[in-house]
Amino acid sequence: MQSIVNLGINAKSAARTLACAGTQVKNKALENIAASLRANAAQIVAANDIDIENGKAAGLSASLLDRLRLNAGRIEGMAAGVDEIALAADPVGNVLWGQVRPNGLKISKVTVPLGVIAVIFEARPNVTSDAAALCLKAGNAVILRGGKEAINSNTAITALMRDAITDAGLPAGCIQLVEDTSRESAAALMKLNGYVDVLIPRGGAGLIRSVVENATVPVIETGVGNCHVYIDRDADLDMAAEIVFNAKTSRPSVCNACETLLVHADVAGEALAKVKSRLDEKNVELRGDKRTCAILPGSIPAAEDDWYREYGDYILAVKVVDSIHEAIDHIARYGSGHSECIVTGSYAASEQFQAQVDAAAVYVNASTRYTDGGEFGFGAEIGISTQKLHARGPLGLMNLLSEKYIVLGSGQVR
Amino acid sequence: MQSIVNLGINAKSAARTLACAGTQVKNKALENIAASLRANAAQIVAANDIDIENGKAAGLSASLLDRLRLNAGRIEGMAAGVDEIALAADPVGNVLWGQVRPNGLKISKVTVPLGVIAVIFEARPNVTSDAAALCLKAGNAVILRGGKEAINSNTAITALMRDAITDAGLPAGCIQLVEDTSRESAAALMKLNGYVDVLIPRGGAGLIRSVVENATVPVIETGVGNCHVYIDRDADLDMAAEIVFNAKTSRPSVCNACETLLVHADVAGEALAKVKSRLDEKNVELRGDKRTCAILPGSIPAAEDDWYREYGDYILAVKVVDSIHEAIDHIARYGSGHSECIVTGSYAASEQFQAQVDAAAVYVNASTRYTDGGEFGFGAEIGISTQKLHARGPLGLMNLLSEKYIVLGSGQVR
Repeated sequence: MQSIVNLGINAKSAARTLACAGTQVKNKALENIAASLRANAAQIVAANDIDIENGKAAGLSASLLDRLRLNAGRIEGMAAGVDEIALAADPVGNVLWGQVRPNGLKISKVTVPLGVIAVIFEARPNVTSDAAALCLKAGNAVILRGGKEAINSNTAITALMRDAITDAGLPAGCIQLVEDTSRESAAALMKLNGYVDVLIPRGGAGLIRSVVENATVPVIETGVGNCHVYIDRDADLDMAAEIVFNAKTSRPSVCNACETLLVHADVAGEALAKVKSRLDEKNVELRGDKRTCAILPGSIPAAEDDWYREYGDYILAVKVVDSIHEAIDHIARYGSGHSECIVTGSYAASEQFQAQVDAAAVYVNASTRYTDGGEFGFGAEIGISTQKLHARGPLGLMNLLSEKYIVLGSGQVR
Repeated sequence: MQSIVNLGINAKSAARTLACAGTQVKNKALENIAASLRANAAQIVAANDIDIENGKAAGLSASLLDRLRLNAGRIEGMAAGVDEIALAADPVGNVLWGQVRPNGLKISKVTVPLGVIAVIFEARPNVTSDAAALCLKAGNAVILRGGKEAINSNTAITALMRDAITDAGLPAGCIQLVEDTSRESAAALMKLNGYVDVLIPRGGAGLIRSVVENATVPVIETGVGNCHVYIDRDADLDMAAEIVFNAKTSRPSVCNACETLLVHADVAGEALAKVKSRLDEKNVELRGDKRTCAILPGSIPAAEDDWYREYGDYILAVKVVDSIHEAIDHIARYGSGHSECIVTGSYAASEQFQAQVDAAAVYVNASTRYTDGGEFGFGAEIGISTQKLHARGPLGLMNLLSEKYIVLGSGQVR
């Protein structure tokens, strides 16, 4: 049987080789992966069919089955994603800083791979190739631990990827899948100190919480987004309604969607009327504080818990505030540090919001939906970091790195 | 009684004010701290005298008592350290990257404070002012939890610092000391999620291990240094002997001191003779593998455990290796990722060592003792990070920061 420690040993060993692999070898491996996904799409779909049948038998919801499903189009999307990563610049070996010290020592700081990255994710099998390709390009070995729902799909994809990279001359240990999808295997991975340099959980709040509470290896938290739009007193209210409509309804299930609307009391009547008229097109349910319910009588009264919720659905919490200060306080208390927006025509208010709101991305007059590696111009990402250590916001290739000081001397002693 | 959660609440609140404080206010607070340490040196020494008396009664070792002791000179050193931090450039608000996207969004990445930093340290009371000043300059509130041996000194220093910063207009919550020095208080601090953004342990291997195993807040590991010097076949052996002598004996208790010497078999005889003749001046005990003991008959045979040890003393483990490859493998297996040195005249060997050794600092022909914030030109540091996430090597002001994306739009929706 596969042991988690053995996966760690294999990964560590492969990482040493991969860290020194040239760009051409890594790109060849990625091109092989993309080609193999395309050539073997039917095989992947057949494995995925088993997952889908098992999922139906287990009573998975339609939306979960949709996330789980792979077809020719989605597999082409996965291959194209890998191709894109092959085309990206190699992020390893960049000199970030350098100086000659008065004693003649030449010190430079260069980017190096993190080493071994573990990724724990849920039902989307496309994460398997996305995460593996990003980790590989940045010179890291990866240990993938996907959800049990997708085990047949993930096994098939991983086997193809391992063949593809060994054909390019890289060790198969660069990409490994945890076959055991029990809670115990995830727990063991969280405590694989000495082998796992970073663990990245990709999934819902429950997974993230479990990782934060149990992991002893370093973690990058991702993905929980309780995002706010605040309509200031000086806002263009038509712009505000468009931004709220987009942030809430363009894709409610994602982490950069808006969950709570805050509106300045001085403009609440007109602003809420405009917002509601747009949101009604998508039958968005409003859960309001007292003043909101007075202005929009059809709203459901919000409970304290609503301010914390990441609905991931056509539901929006709404609160009327007396000042920008109250809005910022609300965000500090209930927000998850993901993406926060102010709509305003005031220079002073925009400056205050930028300075005082503590989040990965702070927006003035634009939808929170832009917090995304592609939209920011970084290319593919492995998630959105909501923690402050190491990396914040979209986690792209440049964030899957560590650094090393190189000190070149001629016999200096201290 | 002081509760740890209340410390967290106070720190979080103070951090929000401090994050937006101007450079002048922060510098004034630091100048006040330095002035107060100088003006109240006698009061600090009196508090320290109680710790020293208690320490003697508790049977602390002479070296521990020395670390614990404060006198006028050491307090002046603490004040001068704070002055230096006041003079450093403010690291908050720097623009790290910026771009206008095709849709007109202006995206920039700016440095922001981490928020609340907790520092758990051991017997050195000077850490109190060093850590507080660094955290404050970078805009972070700090929660200090020192060892029980130094509680009277730490309490006196913290009270002075809190008065000094409130005189400058900053909330006292920017600097707090955990009065309870039990294991429970440290354990509670390690799990203060939602309040503590980063925990930095400063101390020995036992403290670091306890933090890594128990903390649920993000951690930056510091300080464990099992550093190696490898004398290559092509080394200048006189230079090698000087580097080993310096790296081992200039200050054996610190984390960048050399603990194991690796020597290429082809030059082992001459190299070890030269090294031993220098180390004998300081009566350094050698613990050698079989071949070393054959070359230097006075050596003690090394046990497997010796290769893992951070002696912190006038003891050196020595091993003869057959190739640079074997040296690199030994370092990968036993090293702590701190500072590693090759002494060589070979271009190829120096390139291979730089590329394949995975450590915070990799040296060619210079003593490992240079891994230090001051020696690297970064100024004061809070420790040496040996982890790969967030920061590696000397942790200076620039590493006590997070970042934030600012996205300025004109109504963009996706």
